Amino acid sequence: MEISRDTISAWLKELQDSICSQLEKADGIAKFEEDNWTRPEGGGGRTRIIRNGEVIEKGGVLFSAVHGDAPAFLFKEQEHSVSLDKDLGKAGNVPQFFATGVSIVIHPRNPWVPIIHMNIRYFEMPASKNGGAGVRWLGGGIDLTPHYVNETDTKFFHSELKKTCDQFNPDYYTKFKKWADDYFFISHRKETRGIGGIFFDRLNESKEMSFQQNFNFWKEVGKTFAPTYCELINRNKNKSFTPENQQWQLLRRGRYVEFNLVYDKGTKFGLETNGRVESILMSLPKTAGWEYDFKPQENSEEEKTLSMLKKGINWI
Amino acid sequence: MEISRDTISAWLKELQDSICSQLEKADGIAKFEEDNWTRPEGGGGRTRIIRNGEVIEKGGVLFSAVHGDAPAFLFKEQEHSVSLDKDLGKAGNVPQFFATGVSIVIHPRNPWVPIIHMNIRYFEMPASKNGGAGVRWLGGGIDLTPHYVNETDTKFFHSELKKTCDQFNPDYYTKFKKWADDYFFISHRKETRGIGGIFFDRLNESKEMSFQQNFNFWKEVGKTFAPTYCELINRNKNKSFTPENQQWQLLRRGRYVEFNLVYDKGTKFGLETNGRVESILMSLPKTAGWEYDFKPQENSEEEKTLSMLKKGINWI
Repeated sequence: MEISRDTISAWLKELQDSICSQLEKADGIAKFEEDNWTRPEGGGGRTRIIRNGEVIEKGGVLFSAVHGDAPAFLFKEQEHSVSLDKDLGKAGNVPQFFATGVSIVIHPRNPWVPIIHMNIRYFEMPASKNGGAGVRWLGGGIDLTPHYVNETDTKFFHSELKKTCDQFNPDYYTKFKKWADDYFFISHRKETRGIGGIFFDRLNESKEMSFQQNFNFWKEVGKTFAPTYCELINRNKNKSFTPENQQWQLLRRGRYVEFNLVYDKGTKFGLETNGRVESILMSLPKTAGWEYDFKPQENSEEEKTLSMLKKGINWI
Repeated sequence: MEISRDTISAWLKELQDSICSQLEKADGIAKFEEDNWTRPEGGGGRTRIIRNGEVIEKGGVLFSAVHGDAPAFLFKEQEHSVSLDKDLGKAGNVPQFFATGVSIVIHPRNPWVPIIHMNIRYFEMPASKNGGAGVRWLGGGIDLTPHYVNETDTKFFHSELKKTCDQFNPDYYTKFKKWADDYFFISHRKETRGIGGIFFDRLNESKEMSFQQNFNFWKEVGKTFAPTYCELINRNKNKSFTPENQQWQLLRRGRYVEFNLVYDKGTKFGLETNGRVESILMSLPKTAGWEYDFKPQENSEEEKTLSMLKKGINWI
């Protein structure tokens, strides 16, 4: 049975509903506000923002489904993966892309609660205006950015992701964990953004996995997000913190801003293609900070955290 | 008389000294800290940072002079402007570049005092390893980013820049003011970073101007910085402000961060070529903020400021 774009979009909207209601419950007081927007060239989105909560200082759970003429760089990317109609891109023969997804970033108030990010997305584009063999794929991931790395929580987080992966393919966790380490890397700092997670792109079908199986895996990633993060909230939300902890939180958020504005492909793509700026930049924290040449004290929690912002750590 | 790189570097270090002493005086309590650093591939710098002052919350006045093998993209850029040795870039024939400059960013504490940025730089590269006809040029500029645009101060600022330009060339102010408007533009926000100033690059010699004349102009830009900014400090440093003014300051600083991390060529160049991160990112404020879809109140000072963050305003 073919999985249609409408089926996928409808499922993502339900996922958005479910995640928002779980996050509201975990927060206790804040409610999501909703902005519906349309894209002049086709499609639109449902942006949901939560702020000034008991637990969540600022966050968003965004759904979008957009379509229209594919920008040139999108079909150039496909040249190696699919035989394209040779007149593709010429007048009257611009391929129509479709992309839908849910994106989440949550910045908590308490420095002991980690920042989290999730994205799952689906993309399709026929090889010519008239359809024919084109491309479609699934991408996504979940990654965690603790202000203070807590090894017990990190192990729990990675174990939950591994459980989800292992239900579908024994290689996925290892492969996608490495992908996250490589992707969420702040090259100029030689530091990972956080403790990673999983990241994958362009999943469709392979020798071992049908598209349907990958679709099921992808949905399960989406469902793994809320219970995992709510558990991390509940473990840490009542921990007391000092002004020094908050100062460190600002610096860690500064690094988050650096990653998102300098490296994140989704952010760059959005800003370059005239996307909805307020939705794209909802990922930025309410406040962030930078100190010249900050060095944590020896043997401090801050130094310990820095020492663990590395690729290739086996957390489980 | 040939102007040597050593003459230029020495002059820039004196300028750095002079600017730091004028800024310390304007601040009243804070003193610059100095970090000397060397670049493994050649050269180094003298980074001076001021923080937690009476007026200046965070700022830097940076001198650097670096040299070595030119990265490939640098000599590719030259292909159209100079006849290059055809073996250029091959083993044993990598051209040696030299670049020196002073860069300044000052983030004040009081929201009524504007953020300022200045950079003046000199670049040279012979066309081949053995010297010969190569390139050299001067670049730079000064631009102002008020949290609240004050028309009197803006007029004063632009008039001072125009006076400096007019001493050397009647077209420079108009030309370089437009260049600043175009350069300091946050495309995704459709907003200028501030009220502009002047910006120029690749000045060497032209029909009307010798290199020596442009060098004199460039030095005068450097000397214009401190008295102009100190005047703006003195006019505004004692104005009282509210938490709402500080909130707005955080958002304006957030835009400053967006510009510097997404668009600024110096920042991108520095991060991509493995420059000294702490010096490059000294431009970022101690704190910055982002609010989802913030809209200033009608007829407020904030709304008035936003309405003036546009290209092409004739402030004089």
